[in-house]
Amino acid sequence: MEQEFNSTLLENAVSALSRLPGVGRKTALRYALHLLRREPSEAAGIGQAIIDLRQGIRYCRMCHNISETELCPICSSEKRNRSVICVVENVKDVMMIEKTRQFNGLYHVLGGLISPVDGIAPSDIEIESLRERVASDNIEEVILATGATVEADTTNFYIFRMLNRLYPTLKITQIARGVSVGNELEYTDEATLARSLSARTPFEF
Amino acid sequence: MEQEFNSTLLENAVSALSRLPGVGRKTALRYALHLLRREPSEAAGIGQAIIDLRQGIRYCRMCHNISETELCPICSSEKRNRSVICVVENVKDVMMIEKTRQFNGLYHVLGGLISPVDGIAPSDIEIESLRERVASDNIEEVILATGATVEADTTNFYIFRMLNRLYPTLKITQIARGVSVGNELEYTDEATLARSLSARTPFEF
Repeated sequence: MEQEFNSTLLENAVSALSRLPGVGRKTALRYALHLLRREPSEAAGIGQAIIDLRQGIRYCRMCHNISETELCPICSSEKRNRSVICVVENVKDVMMIEKTRQFNGLYHVLGGLISPVDGIAPSDIEIESLRERVASDNIEEVILATGATVEADTTNFYIFRMLNRLYPTLKITQIARGVSVGNELEYTDEATLARSLSARTPFEF
Repeated sequence: MEQEFNSTLLENAVSALSRLPGVGRKTALRYALHLLRREPSEAAGIGQAIIDLRQGIRYCRMCHNISETELCPICSSEKRNRSVICVVENVKDVMMIEKTRQFNGLYHVLGGLISPVDGIAPSDIEIESLRERVASDNIEEVILATGATVEADTTNFYIFRMLNRLYPTLKITQIARGVSVGNELEYTDEATLARSLSARTPFEF
């Protein structure tokens, strides 16, 4: 493509910013021109925060939530109920559930859902590590807290079958389907999410 | 405000990203989580591009357009008609007019418009430097190429009166009002803008 601007620095910044989700070149240019109007220290601060973010954050060894330490604050907390694992699709879902203050156990972030259409197999997400956690720790209950999409149903069913076969006495529940069908968890309002969590039922199919 | 996330790095990144125009904390979080899913080198590249942008770009000494050098490529070009100055509100307007390929003269970026409501006086924008350019160079025509807002009208009138009094023989024109009343220049389509530019008329009031 022809270079649109008379400055390579501007061209680079617009290209970089348009890699953000939902940001096209027009919006990226608006961001870039806005940054040019700010103090150099403020613009540098924004750039540095992005660099620090990606370099400083890793994933919790146990639950795969984002963390600045090897074990995240939730997994290393002594105040949490270590016998319950809440299984969620992604990092944002943990934030959503924490906001409801309805849950005091641990989490397990799958990092995706099984989706044959998108070529995502069980081995592509953190299912094996969930099995290992159930095997090694004294886990009494696994809560399946995903959305109500086809992929979520598939994933829940897969996890249920695997865990139920290996550990028949393990309690496997799912959050109540107050979550509207077809919606993703991160767009659910807190009230609905809190109710779904407290009204969870044994997994059935 | 209570810290929303369990990570200071994430908190910092969300705060930084929400300083971009039109970006709230929700969108900033979406950007941050997206960056966390990219390769560290890609995220670092985006951060670095922002830092480089603000550190490397300055404003052209002559026309006040953004530039990587003291004099921008347009002002230092020998192919441009140095006797015509096109006066615009901001940097984006220069890009818009350059895209129409209808103009071969020089620019003068005011960096704003006179607006008593917002407390912006003639001395807050680059009007005095425009007068100096007209005084020192062999300028034959000044084109007022602003939008069609009240502030643009005020600014055009102010510039016209000042220049006309000092240099009665100077040709002062304005772009044709094909620009819809109430609109800003950067949201005008290229065809309308090109027409307005070629059908410019002597300034009248």
